[in-house]
Amino acid sequence: MSPSPTPDGATRGWIIPIGGSEEKENNATILERFVQICGGRDAKIVVIPTASKLHDTGDRYRAIFTDLGATEVDVMDFDTRRDGDEPGRVAAIKACDGVFLTGGNQMRLATMIGGTAVAKALREHNANGGHVAGTSAGASFLSEHMIAFGDDNRMPHAGSVTLAPGLGLTNRVVIDQHFTQRGRLGRLITALAFNPFLIGLGIDEDTAAFISPDQTVEVEGSGTVTIVDSSKLKFSSMDGAGPDDPISMLGLTLHVLIRGATFNLHTREASAGTLAVSKS
Amino acid sequence: MSPSPTPDGATRGWIIPIGGSEEKENNATILERFVQICGGRDAKIVVIPTASKLHDTGDRYRAIFTDLGATEVDVMDFDTRRDGDEPGRVAAIKACDGVFLTGGNQMRLATMIGGTAVAKALREHNANGGHVAGTSAGASFLSEHMIAFGDDNRMPHAGSVTLAPGLGLTNRVVIDQHFTQRGRLGRLITALAFNPFLIGLGIDEDTAAFISPDQTVEVEGSGTVTIVDSSKLKFSSMDGAGPDDPISMLGLTLHVLIRGATFNLHTREASAGTLAVSKS
Repeated sequence: MSPSPTPDGATRGWIIPIGGSEEKENNATILERFVQICGGRDAKIVVIPTASKLHDTGDRYRAIFTDLGATEVDVMDFDTRRDGDEPGRVAAIKACDGVFLTGGNQMRLATMIGGTAVAKALREHNANGGHVAGTSAGASFLSEHMIAFGDDNRMPHAGSVTLAPGLGLTNRVVIDQHFTQRGRLGRLITALAFNPFLIGLGIDEDTAAFISPDQTVEVEGSGTVTIVDSSKLKFSSMDGAGPDDPISMLGLTLHVLIRGATFNLHTREASAGTLAVSKS
Repeated sequence: MSPSPTPDGATRGWIIPIGGSEEKENNATILERFVQICGGRDAKIVVIPTASKLHDTGDRYRAIFTDLGATEVDVMDFDTRRDGDEPGRVAAIKACDGVFLTGGNQMRLATMIGGTAVAKALREHNANGGHVAGTSAGASFLSEHMIAFGDDNRMPHAGSVTLAPGLGLTNRVVIDQHFTQRGRLGRLITALAFNPFLIGLGIDEDTAAFISPDQTVEVEGSGTVTIVDSSKLKFSSMDGAGPDDPISMLGLTLHVLIRGATFNLHTREASAGTLAVSKS
């Protein structure tokens, strides 16, 4: 689904894909910043653990966000698609400052929440200033075009990635997680090969791409965010390739960002940000 | 060591790094092309199996190249550094059409052959038209700046790669092998971060970068060659980074080549080559 339009006078909330395995106890800089953006001690957070098969995932994040100072943390799980149309849940989404989607399997999120009133509420809430973070599977799900599944440590080939519609908070990016740890450049490039208007965000473990209301990616955490920009693509062999054929893509631009560097999704400009300042 | 200058009237030989695990029986397109370049039925080939710990590596390649039609295949192993100064071996290098370095450990090649008369003979022979191929460890060793060892599936960080002097047939590239299969983008980018004049060649398994006498990379085999060109680099955080710190590199150019596409190491131009022709 397309992102909801931002109403007059409103400012869009942050969109925060996290690459998985984020620090949760010592040095939990990513989760801390999420709580701060949600209002710190005033933060009301809804945790959606539906991607996960583990029964304690929601409770675990409730304890973490409470420890980090959030005033109210609710766990909202979905067992059937009917849950997604329940007015109480829609109201709870609209009333919170931030929503956090845990890891697990993004297909569970898409099949359980996709097309429900809650999905629509999440898009509208983000357009109205509500913040939405997701880690691992939760990160993949945030964008309109989602990597449903794919190959690790493989060359780009059409069969290396399967795209599906995601939540649709943004339509500019395709998000991959556990990026360098699982060797996912091949499948991210393949995702861009389908339609190069997308910008690829490859997010490492314990690393997050904080996408600001003005579409600037800021990095938090201990790793890198790899941006693959195909706007200057000179050639792609994708149109004639079979599912197992390697794909040629000539003229990609690659930026490796760390904490302090930024990338603007609108202008497609990378900046050293505070990294350059710290050198001068 | 620097490449030997090409004497007046001579044409440099091909330099052929292979990403490892090349097909050896059915569909051995890479090894076939190497034999063809060496003269086909007239080819005299020297196999150097010194990187390998397996005793039958040399004999195995002798059988393969003989099956592919080479008229003479000699296995030349090195057990001590003294072997590298033996006049008979130097003469055999100079008399052959092509040398093939097997896989194993590139540190064994560098420590056993580096600085010997045979290493010098290999450089001079290549400058005079002799062809040199290497697979896996043998590929890494070909260039002046060699990845000695490093991390798989890790983000770029200064400690992720250790460079060492290699054979020095070319000084333009740094070569990595088993590239997408082992998630080596991070360490290849790190190698470029040390000094961005280098061009990164990330070569997949069963894939080769045939570097022509005029410095054009042509791809052979079933996978991809990833070219990372840092000549338009806008920013690097390498100078201030500790060994475990992630590195930011902004403004890299990336080309994914397959069989038919080319990249000129001199002009740094990627071309769709025969891939574009086959579409029109």
